[in-house]
Amino acid sequence: MTEIRSSSAGSAPAEVPGSAAVVGCGVIGAAWAARFRLHGVPVKAFDPSPDAARIVDEVSANAVAAWEDLGLPAELASIEFCDSVEEAVAEAELVQESVPERLELKQSTLAAVDAAAPADALIGSSTSGLLCSDMAANLTHPERLLVAHPFNPVYLLPLVEVVGGKATSAETIDRAMSTYRGLGMKPLHVKAEIDAHIADRLLEAVWRESLWLVNDGIATTEEIDDAIRYGFGLRWAQMGLFETYRIAGGEGGFGHFIRQFGPALSWPWTKLMDVPDLTDELVDRLESQSDEQSGAYTVRELERIRDRNLAAMMLALETNQWGAGQTVAEMRERLDRS
Amino acid sequence: MTEIRSSSAGSAPAEVPGSAAVVGCGVIGAAWAARFRLHGVPVKAFDPSPDAARIVDEVSANAVAAWEDLGLPAELASIEFCDSVEEAVAEAELVQESVPERLELKQSTLAAVDAAAPADALIGSSTSGLLCSDMAANLTHPERLLVAHPFNPVYLLPLVEVVGGKATSAETIDRAMSTYRGLGMKPLHVKAEIDAHIADRLLEAVWRESLWLVNDGIATTEEIDDAIRYGFGLRWAQMGLFETYRIAGGEGGFGHFIRQFGPALSWPWTKLMDVPDLTDELVDRLESQSDEQSGAYTVRELERIRDRNLAAMMLALETNQWGAGQTVAEMRERLDRS
Repeated sequence: MTEIRSSSAGSAPAEVPGSAAVVGCGVIGAAWAARFRLHGVPVKAFDPSPDAARIVDEVSANAVAAWEDLGLPAELASIEFCDSVEEAVAEAELVQESVPERLELKQSTLAAVDAAAPADALIGSSTSGLLCSDMAANLTHPERLLVAHPFNPVYLLPLVEVVGGKATSAETIDRAMSTYRGLGMKPLHVKAEIDAHIADRLLEAVWRESLWLVNDGIATTEEIDDAIRYGFGLRWAQMGLFETYRIAGGEGGFGHFIRQFGPALSWPWTKLMDVPDLTDELVDRLESQSDEQSGAYTVRELERIRDRNLAAMMLALETNQWGAGQTVAEMRERLDRS
Repeated sequence: MTEIRSSSAGSAPAEVPGSAAVVGCGVIGAAWAARFRLHGVPVKAFDPSPDAARIVDEVSANAVAAWEDLGLPAELASIEFCDSVEEAVAEAELVQESVPERLELKQSTLAAVDAAAPADALIGSSTSGLLCSDMAANLTHPERLLVAHPFNPVYLLPLVEVVGGKATSAETIDRAMSTYRGLGMKPLHVKAEIDAHIADRLLEAVWRESLWLVNDGIATTEEIDDAIRYGFGLRWAQMGLFETYRIAGGEGGFGHFIRQFGPALSWPWTKLMDVPDLTDELVDRLESQSDEQSGAYTVRELERIRDRNLAAMMLALETNQWGAGQTVAEMRERLDRS
């Protein structure tokens, strides 16, 4: 059952950077730091928040536990907190920026990174929605800036969306693909710059529809989550939308499917195109339903439950030599060799 | 890590019907038949298509293989093909209707079922989009009709959306919840009748967005599938949208998350609300990209790959006593006892 088709990572060789800087140490930045350190890459970090060190500690502990679940060597390379962006990035081969999603903040932070990082450093931004070209506005060397958008938990989920801006060089994209592959990830090169890239586009479509369902009193947050995780969510851990429905087309293939089901699928598409207002009442309803659904666990407990489940499913897929399991297998081979 | 919260199945006891009828034996009907037979329930089937027996054989073979992967007893109770709807349903405790999605056909088929089935038979329709109240128009006993919408592969995925119409009795819903639970499923009672219920509402939102991405040349079918299965798809096999993002809210809970991210999430929502035309050109593009992506496998091979992956992940979740794994554990306990 070996998955033989061409990978989105292409034939990029896997390269592990010699050092990395993490700028912004919230949950995303801290999880990047953990992934780097678990690959033996020493990290320098900068975050002005007094909570940064605690978040790094907590996320690192989760990451180590998850890698132990995967049966991977779970040793953390060093991390050093710096007093400035400049100090953190001065010697970094890879800089990962994960500051809050405000364009001005991204621009000023990246300008500081650009001014202080080695000329040949890769600069990846974790932005989930902003355009690389917009963020590159103030840079002297915009050719080495790219979007590298990961998914929580970053130390475990393989996907990273790699997007260049107008000024990003082809060499930067090639190096980024090799580097993130070397960090055990599945880099997906998104060829066009659009708001929210690919995955968050899909996620936001689901958000929009889900908020309507709650807003209109059709379903609770728990019912919506159950509709996902007992059904199509299981499918999507191993095949996406198109491959799944190719099967539904039978021997006639995907064209047969889409020609047959297209018209039937189209009618609900014409509805609920608007966006519900995020009123206080809707926010309160979402909050109380979420408490009802998940309040028996702390967030720390939920994180560990999530990570144990992800690791177990990824191991299962590794046995089957498929999808995210293949990414784990490749990572395991490299880590066991080193 | 036992999942202690209240299940959507409520406290409905699990009940296995003594007999079942399957009306319509395409992929969905055939997979229902397999699920029934694997639970020891003898099936009578009706489908006018000359392909019905072959489809039932192929789907049954897949179902047996999947249950062997799960380590469940994989013995099939009997199936008998009948020459009419009336003959198939005459002695059935549960009738499952899975004919094509055309309202008139559903109405006439269900009227025939209603006229011939025992007075206390449950009648479930597999419709993915139609309203129970509309389908019940011609029935003498509409109180026992409900929507029971499953997900492919029906012999493996636990979710079934249970929806009553205006005339459906509360007792019918209660019995349906018990019955589908007895068949190893996770029945989700959808309290309001809307087009496409809950899950397909979400799926169609993703379809809409995905077709735009292909239409606009942003991404190929393979890239979209990879954006799903290496990232949020893995998460959704075990937690849904709301529980996942509750974690992102940290100790501040879901209210913190939605208040903080709501405004940022809203801007892409204002775009791409329209629906792309399913032109011949778009259909051709989808078809050729799908061939490129998945054409190395036959549909039969893809089915087995999908099922092996699903079974392996469900076993992993069973070990973790979580989500779909708990449904398998409950089913295993009942089947091992019987």
